[in-house]
Amino acid sequence: MSKIYSVAVLVGSLRKGAYTRMLANALKKIAPPSIALSIVEIGDLPLYNPDLDDAGAPAAWTRFRNEVKSSNAVLFITPEYNRSVPAALKNALDVGSRPYGASVWPGKPGAIISLTPGSLGAFGANHHLRQSLVFLDVPTLQQPEAYLGNAGSMFDVAGGFADASTEAHMKAYLDAFADWITRTAKA
Amino acid sequence: MSKIYSVAVLVGSLRKGAYTRMLANALKKIAPPSIALSIVEIGDLPLYNPDLDDAGAPAAWTRFRNEVKSSNAVLFITPEYNRSVPAALKNALDVGSRPYGASVWPGKPGAIISLTPGSLGAFGANHHLRQSLVFLDVPTLQQPEAYLGNAGSMFDVAGGFADASTEAHMKAYLDAFADWITRTAKA
Amino acid sequence: MSKIYSVAVLVGSLRKGAYTRMLANALKKIAPPSIALSIVEIGDLPLYNPDLDDAGAPAAWTRFRNEVKSSNAVLFITPEYNRSVPAALKNALDVGSRPYGASVWPGKPGAIISLTPGSLGAFGANHHLRQSLVFLDVPTLQQPEAYLGNAGSMFDVAGGFADASTEAHMKAYLDAFADWITRTAKA
Amino acid sequence: MSKIYSVAVLVGSLRKGAYTRMLANALKKIAPPSIALSIVEIGDLPLYNPDLDDAGAPAAWTRFRNEVKSSNAVLFITPEYNRSVPAALKNALDVGSRPYGASVWPGKPGAIISLTPGSLGAFGANHHLRQSLVFLDVPTLQQPEAYLGNAGSMFDVAGGFADASTEAHMKAYLDAFADWITRTAKA
Repeated sequence: MSKIYSVAVLVGSLRKGAYTRMLANALKKIAPPSIALSIVEIGDLPLYNPDLDDAGAPAAWTRFRNEVKSSNAVLFITPEYNRSVPAALKNALDVGSRPYGASVWPGKPGAIISLTPGSLGAFGANHHLRQSLVFLDVPTLQQPEAYLGNAGSMFDVAGGFADASTEAHMKAYLDAFADWITRTAKA
Repeated sequence: MSKIYSVAVLVGSLRKGAYTRMLANALKKIAPPSIALSIVEIGDLPLYNPDLDDAGAPAAWTRFRNEVKSSNAVLFITPEYNRSVPAALKNALDVGSRPYGASVWPGKPGAIISLTPGSLGAFGANHHLRQSLVFLDVPTLQQPEAYLGNAGSMFDVAGGFADASTEAHMKAYLDAFADWITRTAKA
Repeated sequence: MSKIYSVAVLVGSLRKGAYTRMLANALKKIAPPSIALSIVEIGDLPLYNPDLDDAGAPAAWTRFRNEVKSSNAVLFITPEYNRSVPAALKNALDVGSRPYGASVWPGKPGAIISLTPGSLGAFGANHHLRQSLVFLDVPTLQQPEAYLGNAGSMFDVAGGFADASTEAHMKAYLDAFADWITRTAKA
Repeated sequence: MSKIYSVAVLVGSLRKGAYTRMLANALKKIAPPSIALSIVEIGDLPLYNPDLDDAGAPAAWTRFRNEVKSSNAVLFITPEYNRSVPAALKNALDVGSRPYGASVWPGKPGAIISLTPGSLGAFGANHHLRQSLVFLDVPTLQQPEAYLGNAGSMFDVAGGFADASTEAHMKAYLDAFADWITRTAKA
């Protein structure tokens, strides 16, 4: 029996009805059997401030760090805020990277899907995130890239993909990610 | 009598003893008479989530938005976290940019000083911030640039600059910023 | 009688039938009377190598430098090659920036229109170019931004815009650029 | 007997006495036995223009493409020109990526060392290059990063490293790259 890899899914928008959260849920339904996606919440993390770690880390930080640590890989699903990564998602990166020497990120295979209501595919957020992941040592899937637009018409009423070609694209993306995890995950 | 321009100073690190805060305070002492620097706090802003605006904005958001709105210009002093802008500073950008149609940023002249204990000058944070400021329509000083390193030995015990050449650099920088404000600030 | 500003237009693709060149020509027809667009060629510039300047600059470099120097402003029209600026356009930036102390760029107002056959609007090229323009001290129009997609259906057989809304967008863009030039150009 | 991997080294500056070329030569002397570094020249490549491929590729393009294709991995050694990748190096990326369907880059493990006479380590060039390598599908070493400054005092008269700690850093870097190649190179 082959290994099933757990994938922490980080959703960049905190809005209850966020398209990025809808996408996370739609992806769960079509993921290949070798990976298990589950959302790790980031909305309750206090803004990163090193003084808080010195005083004893907030409970939400500890919860978040443990959940990422116990996952085999990380999938980032991000909108674009002001041509960059939403603060909530950058905060999750910062909280997970500390305290010094205890980062939860190094070596966890990663992938990025960026999604926007417009047509530009949140390219700016996607690549700003990649720059951080170089430093955090998250080996990140390069091809295929996924810059998704037109979020407003992406889903059907049941929360699946409204369009067969988008679904096929996403299936291929997750297959490539599953393969990437198999090749790069630490034992 | 000539106009004095008020400059909102945003400090990227929330740490009490942050070098970026020390720099903000050191700059106040050497600013030319045409600009008045004052720190606008960002550490108490809840993570940006559009649902909160729909429910009535948190008091800290309203306070922050008003303080920026009533300033003539903005100076960003930022460290680098994970090769990008600290979450707290990105959060301030996001909070200030919303709700749709009520952004506090458009047309306010801006400048960026990035500072780090190492030698690379927080270049990654500096330019990620610039990408957001294009969208936010903050006309940002281009030359001189300010990528400062060796933060740990930058200040003397009185909170001034330990080194005359750094002080001269910063004076010239603030003069250039004051000139930039004069040329680009809205009436 | 008011001043007419000359605008050097740099076209990023060297292909004879390039969409970016078609766009440059279509823009000439709709520019406001206060700016005069003319293409400055970059395809014959030898790859930048400082040794060549030491030996006496190649004629094409001298021609290019003079043409930019004698212009009041610069409009960059760029496709995206491999998620960044085409080499030919980066080469024009490098050639124009040297020799040390004789850069042709500082203070010339600039604007960027990026164009691609796909939907992502050449965002990556647009912003990599902006990072260089910070250093080169080209005050660059921030809003509106122009990330154009679907280049293949953009023009009619006469070389005008096939679509009224694209033409209106481009007219508004050029008006904003003309205003930007008026406000920031050196006397 | 274990495999020796051939590594194409691309040097970003065309200057005869370039620090980046000196670095390439210094690295050859200290590379681990599992990788063999050799410089692939890029200075004679005509500026990329798709029309040239349609007319029959220039001989220099064909030579370059073949040399990269026959290598197992690629090491980029780049200075920074105007806060980005030198045109000559971007040109090599563009030439190697075409014609459509015949890119020489996909799947070749890569690494980047950026080098500058100043202190900022050519960070801007380093990360602009990384953005292109995502698209080109070059799996690029993330950690350690290598942003080198003070190029002017880096080498001794024999072309080795003047400083033992720099040499140790570079040895560790090449060891990490050799390990990265072993793990990610195609059979």
